[in-house]
Amino acid sequence: MERIFDYEELWRFTKNVFSSIGCSEEHAALAASGLLRADLRGIDSHGIARLTGYIRLWEAKRANPRPDMKIVHETPSTGVVDGDGGLGLVVAPFAMGLAISKAKNVGSGWIAVRNSNHFGIAAHHALLALENEMIGIVMTNASALVAPTFSVERLLGTNPICVAIPAGKEPPFVADLATTTAANGKLEILQRKIQQAPEGWIQDKDGTISTNPHELKAGGALLPLGGDREHGSHKGYALGAVVDIFSGVLSGANYGPWVPPFPAFIPIPENMPGKGIGHFFGAMRIDAFRTSAEFRKDMDQWLKRFRQAKPAKGFDQVLVPGDPERIMETERKKNGIPLMHAVVEDLEYLAERFKISSPV
Amino acid sequence: MERIFDYEELWRFTKNVFSSIGCSEEHAALAASGLLRADLRGIDSHGIARLTGYIRLWEAKRANPRPDMKIVHETPSTGVVDGDGGLGLVVAPFAMGLAISKAKNVGSGWIAVRNSNHFGIAAHHALLALENEMIGIVMTNASALVAPTFSVERLLGTNPICVAIPAGKEPPFVADLATTTAANGKLEILQRKIQQAPEGWIQDKDGTISTNPHELKAGGALLPLGGDREHGSHKGYALGAVVDIFSGVLSGANYGPWVPPFPAFIPIPENMPGKGIGHFFGAMRIDAFRTSAEFRKDMDQWLKRFRQAKPAKGFDQVLVPGDPERIMETERKKNGIPLMHAVVEDLEYLAERFKISSPV
Repeated sequence: MERIFDYEELWRFTKNVFSSIGCSEEHAALAASGLLRADLRGIDSHGIARLTGYIRLWEAKRANPRPDMKIVHETPSTGVVDGDGGLGLVVAPFAMGLAISKAKNVGSGWIAVRNSNHFGIAAHHALLALENEMIGIVMTNASALVAPTFSVERLLGTNPICVAIPAGKEPPFVADLATTTAANGKLEILQRKIQQAPEGWIQDKDGTISTNPHELKAGGALLPLGGDREHGSHKGYALGAVVDIFSGVLSGANYGPWVPPFPAFIPIPENMPGKGIGHFFGAMRIDAFRTSAEFRKDMDQWLKRFRQAKPAKGFDQVLVPGDPERIMETERKKNGIPLMHAVVEDLEYLAERFKISSPV
Repeated sequence: MERIFDYEELWRFTKNVFSSIGCSEEHAALAASGLLRADLRGIDSHGIARLTGYIRLWEAKRANPRPDMKIVHETPSTGVVDGDGGLGLVVAPFAMGLAISKAKNVGSGWIAVRNSNHFGIAAHHALLALENEMIGIVMTNASALVAPTFSVERLLGTNPICVAIPAGKEPPFVADLATTTAANGKLEILQRKIQQAPEGWIQDKDGTISTNPHELKAGGALLPLGGDREHGSHKGYALGAVVDIFSGVLSGANYGPWVPPFPAFIPIPENMPGKGIGHFFGAMRIDAFRTSAEFRKDMDQWLKRFRQAKPAKGFDQVLVPGDPERIMETERKKNGIPLMHAVVEDLEYLAERFKISSPV
């Protein structure tokens, strides 16, 4: 079912594919690193498996390989970037870099982005802040698959929030979460395995809770974190809505049901109010609040206390957000990245399509 | 069971109580408005029902009625406030005002607060931003009642997040949510009614999911939003953790299991690493991103689209976060605030204790 590939090998191939559609050397390298970070961290749904999706967007003239990214509005601590329809994998590091640069100057930086595309995993961009002794915050909206509480219509994307917080000797805190009960990728796994979904993940086209993973494609919807009202779905809905408004409304991108879908074969919504999809980036310098030494001491104590908490019956260990992904990243850098047969076929197709050497 | 009281009457009484413990006229008025905002908005657990709790904190010398609040560290867009052990109801407006003033100057303002106490409902402080054409963000940590995913220990508070976003003609977006499946107040209602809790709200002292609302007082714990791992509790845990770190670690307050409890009869934790409880406030000027006119037009369209979404079977209407509280506030300002018998008795006790005229 699966074959193992070396990270460097996949990285060179991915970079060559992005070069082939016209990206500069710098942008192709940036995009390859961003995309493969998902595979390294074990978020297989967001990694090289989506490479053909990006290429189809480019074929549909919905991804610009030579974007002229611009700051269209700014204050000392905030700004709006127009991504010129570029790959989110390229636009996001530009915007995060700007947030970091503003934080260097005035303590914090906050950048809303319009006219962008899917940017891979939020954590990849948030982690840039850690290298600068800053907290990184990243959000993005996405095409509508999620029904707000009490709604039968799909109005929100899975709209993730990532917060990365540095520490001293302890590994850092990196929370990266979709604001839904379960990500779409998990449903796809259940569909393939012909298994039922737990209650609280999806509803059918009438808005009734369902356990059939195929309901999503039959007009159903993913559910906000919480699942139903009794279990707090109005909170997951509120969080997904905040992500949508910060990413889409504050930037002048599209929002809600008007966010253009990632799969190029799904038609673009009519009467779109903005440009492309939207992201939101934040960076806060640690020493804009406390000395780095004081902060690191307390942050280490926080992390130790949580990692050493007494586990509940049947569990080995309490984890801190980001622990599983960090462990996976170390493992896969060393031992390689497993790819499913369908993904390997996609890579063979791309090698053929662009006449580049295949890692396969 | 309940009696209805006029808002103005309760406000004067509450202000007199705060004056009686030594607050200045200005601070007593501020604290009364903050506390009663919870009753107006229907968050009865956080309103005048807690007035005796604040007084007990003062009696235990854990709330300073004459705080010398200070900015102990700052940059153009950030800062840390030491609340000098003051009432959170007084410290929070000071810190939020500072965030707003920084946002006026450089686009956004972010203030972490240490050495504070319980501040009522987060929305009351976030709404200050709306009057200034800003987005308001408010968080606070609280004493540990919540077990992280896989943990049997209680390490986090119900740690709420509030985000208030202005609009044009439409009523604004105000999300104010505890990062748990259910608030403690809701459990207390079930305890009184001798009813079972839904699965996903609490676990018992061994970390097993329970439906007995009394388990919390028997060493059990509230659960993070999501309930269990399969339903995304690791996301609710991550969000509660972010609130704790922003409020507690970034400010130099206490965090995790060391946050001092609100009820004065619960002992203070040993070896507290910081000062008091912590909050975090943010303000972002709308026109630091887009012109106010552009933003309001899109925000109105967002709000209309969600408010007019087609409801699922069995529901009348899709709500936007903040709608129920806003409707309640209008209703209770006009028709009065219902108080339960036990709360009325508390007010009679306070009137007697401070020799002030009772609203009862």
